[in-house]
Amino acid sequence: MPSNKIPRATARRLPIYYRYLTALKNNKKERVSSTELSQAVQVDSATIRRDFSYFGELGKRGYGYDVESLLKFFMSILHQDSLVSVALVGVGSLGSALLNFNFRQDANLRIGAAFDSKPEYANTVMSGIPIYPSEELEKQLKEQQINIAILTVQGEHAQEVTDRLVDAGVKGIMNFTPVRLSVPEGVQVQNIDLTNELQTLIYFIKNYSDED
Amino acid sequence: MPSNKIPRATARRLPIYYRYLTALKNNKKERVSSTELSQAVQVDSATIRRDFSYFGELGKRGYGYDVESLLKFFMSILHQDSLVSVALVGVGSLGSALLNFNFRQDANLRIGAAFDSKPEYANTVMSGIPIYPSEELEKQLKEQQINIAILTVQGEHAQEVTDRLVDAGVKGIMNFTPVRLSVPEGVQVQNIDLTNELQTLIYFIKNYSDED
Repeated sequence: MPSNKIPRATARRLPIYYRYLTALKNNKKERVSSTELSQAVQVDSATIRRDFSYFGELGKRGYGYDVESLLKFFMSILHQDSLVSVALVGVGSLGSALLNFNFRQDANLRIGAAFDSKPEYANTVMSGIPIYPSEELEKQLKEQQINIAILTVQGEHAQEVTDRLVDAGVKGIMNFTPVRLSVPEGVQVQNIDLTNELQTLIYFIKNYSDED
Repeated sequence: MPSNKIPRATARRLPIYYRYLTALKNNKKERVSSTELSQAVQVDSATIRRDFSYFGELGKRGYGYDVESLLKFFMSILHQDSLVSVALVGVGSLGSALLNFNFRQDANLRIGAAFDSKPEYANTVMSGIPIYPSEELEKQLKEQQINIAILTVQGEHAQEVTDRLVDAGVKGIMNFTPVRLSVPEGVQVQNIDLTNELQTLIYFIKNYSDED
């Protein structure tokens, strides 16, 4: 692994490359050309070659890039070397579903603490994860040294909870609410709205599936 | 609503606009200027004005756009007028989590049928949804007139199941596997990899949270 840090713009393309290389591996392909990669991930070849030089992969003329060693590199930087605990706030239908899912594909990721304001959930354990009353948010995040949170509260509480998370030292939020969160510089938000994703898919099929 | 169909490129930006307008509504804002929208959604003002003309919204000089009527428009096209049933294939930890979640934010979306190859799940009901043995896929999709599927199988089966779904008439797939699916023209795929999203968030925080 290169000792210089990967440029931010390159790092943003990591998941795109990672996904395609994983698909290649699943289909038992051992190598890939920068042309094929370029078409698949919609990034021009020159950028790919530059990105990959940061990954320690120069490619071989006539051979292309080695899928297995690229994947090893990605896994080493995306996969956590040690256990990373995240918090989940809002144990509603989606929150409890994620507690059950618990990112099992990666053994070094787990939800370590959940929070909810419902009294019947306070100090219970669901899917092996403790649910704390929302008043204990700051205390538990500090004690457990958690700085990443999954937000699955109702939209109307999203910003207020976010403010508390930021004050408590959280640096990253995986936002499943439809609300666009306001956070200071230095706090990263990743937005996922599953219902909207499905609605959009249905809308596209209804209106555009007869086109190419 | 305009009777002409919205251009495809405009339609692709719908979820981006929808999300931001929802956030504005949640924060009780009644209007928004094209400048603010442009910065928020990272789309230039001219494109926004053109897109919005298709939404029947011409804006008012000095006032901007009306949040409520824009949202009403989006909801009318994204929200389904009648119940849409989708299928879910692969009742593992994520699949069963999604059965429990069942897209409750939209009363006209539901998972109508699930499929799994585990004998202990065949012909049982989980979270109110029937789980059929995988052999019944084609039959149930046809009988229930389902043409959208959520894919939550193991990666190594993703393409093979996709081929069966496509043959059975499915036009849209919400893909939660890490595999990049190969589908014919006319079939739409939406990719979501929750573990990769979280890994990337963690990676960014570890490496970039001290930058702006």
